[in-house]
Amino acid sequence: MKIIGVIGASSCDEKVYKKALELGKLLAEKGYAVVCGGLGGVMRAVCEGAERAGGITIGILPGKYSSDANPFVKIPVVTAMSHARNAIIVRTADAVVAVGGRYGTLSEIALALAIDKKVISLETSWNIRGVIKAKSPEEAVKIIGK
Amino acid sequence: MKIIGVIGASSCDEKVYKKALELGKLLAEKGYAVVCGGLGGVMRAVCEGAERAGGITIGILPGKYSSDANPFVKIPVVTAMSHARNAIIVRTADAVVAVGGRYGTLSEIALALAIDKKVISLETSWNIRGVIKAKSPEEAVKIIGK
Amino acid sequence: MKIIGVIGASSCDEKVYKKALELGKLLAEKGYAVVCGGLGGVMRAVCEGAERAGGITIGILPGKYSSDANPFVKIPVVTAMSHARNAIIVRTADAVVAVGGRYGTLSEIALALAIDKKVISLETSWNIRGVIKAKSPEEAVKIIGK
Amino acid sequence: MKIIGVIGASSCDEKVYKKALELGKLLAEKGYAVVCGGLGGVMRAVCEGAERAGGITIGILPGKYSSDANPFVKIPVVTAMSHARNAIIVRTADAVVAVGGRYGTLSEIALALAIDKKVISLETSWNIRGVIKAKSPEEAVKIIGK
Repeated sequence: MKIIGVIGASSCDEKVYKKALELGKLLAEKGYAVVCGGLGGVMRAVCEGAERAGGITIGILPGKYSSDANPFVKIPVVTAMSHARNAIIVRTADAVVAVGGRYGTLSEIALALAIDKKVISLETSWNIRGVIKAKSPEEAVKIIGK
Repeated sequence: MKIIGVIGASSCDEKVYKKALELGKLLAEKGYAVVCGGLGGVMRAVCEGAERAGGITIGILPGKYSSDANPFVKIPVVTAMSHARNAIIVRTADAVVAVGGRYGTLSEIALALAIDKKVISLETSWNIRGVIKAKSPEEAVKIIGK
Repeated sequence: MKIIGVIGASSCDEKVYKKALELGKLLAEKGYAVVCGGLGGVMRAVCEGAERAGGITIGILPGKYSSDANPFVKIPVVTAMSHARNAIIVRTADAVVAVGGRYGTLSEIALALAIDKKVISLETSWNIRGVIKAKSPEEAVKIIGK
Repeated sequence: MKIIGVIGASSCDEKVYKKALELGKLLAEKGYAVVCGGLGGVMRAVCEGAERAGGITIGILPGKYSSDANPFVKIPVVTAMSHARNAIIVRTADAVVAVGGRYGTLSEIALALAIDKKVISLETSWNIRGVIKAKSPEEAVKIIGK
């Protein structure tokens, strides 16, 4: 089973939420598991989409309790490691999709590139050499499969 | 879904392997997911037992690659953190069962007790205040359910 | 420069505090740096003893802020990793002395033994194969030097 | 004592090495300690500069052995945590200076911004909102002091 990392901010607007929701659905339909940070915003959206499509959702949580996970995380992994857990998300993923996102997301993009993972971005303002831009969740999933 | 941590050495004798195999089977039959260190020995045995009974197996790996996981790990989480990943196993688990084990296992037992998790031991030579000794995998699973 | 790890609980009685204070002083006089968890109790005592004797004190802090360090930590290292920082203390140390201590300390003792570090205990109730018992801070420092 | 993080690649050209060397010297002269990843390239340069000026140099090492540290690291902290140690460098630092650098450095810049640390860049090709560009080591040190 391939595991796809989805990274993005813990709060986001409606438009970004919908894209992440759709992305989660498409990933699950392809048979991919989703790994993310397990919290709200983009992380919640992608888990919601994947879970509704019957997919496996893994949340690598920064805090001390599994109850921090959004309700669509099936496998909560409790690190109690704050941002250092970002490295675990990226290592665990076979490829990474960034959806929107701020500095935390940028740190994960850079880390993923540093260890030679494929990185795809959706609705991201960052313009980083090595990241493949996708115009839609469909395109992102297509790029993963290549 | 409850997640049960199973800890033990990465190599073990036939007798301990069988106990861990049986434990994995019983945990999966109860509907528990299993989290462990994802490598060989006791970790492999418990995953094999759980996987054959249709359970979910999570391996929190110390190295850099998911290919380090034993073949019965369904969800490989790649930490690249060596022994520091022990803290993640213990935090992720609702309760912990130690099977056999040496110093690495003792460190996980102590960590689990330090954060107030229920700890059960099977075939363990350590004699630590606070650990509940079980005589069989069946008894271990019963103690978890209490 | 040799770095000696000192591990023990974040609160302790007067007797244990004095032993840790004396240990810190003797380590600094030998030219050893001290690494510990950087908080109160035994950690504070050993830093106080070492700092007063002109030694270097390194605190590997579990929380997010260097202000968590006791006032005798010269080098606060901020991990935001909770108990996972125990692995860093033990890896950083050339040898480890446990003073008193509860489950957290036991986890560090076991981890240190797992990676083949010399472990010495003072005033410890744990009785773990591989740990060298010292009757006084003086004896602990002598054993380190051997 | 203020601790300044210096981040940059583990190999670099002559020009970048000299800048980092000069930066280390100036930081030490100001009484700042330097924290870095403890390896080669920019990390070695800044430690060499700081150590020659009598400063304290802390290396947060990604591997398992203190012998991985460059010869100018005074305090080697051994994490065995690969890239996850980047979060520790950034948390430990009161402010961060990026010198040159590739993806690993970018991940540290982003992480530092995510937790509201002042970030200054020297000879860096990344163009990230929130980073203060300095034209020389002197200017970088001035910006830290503001």
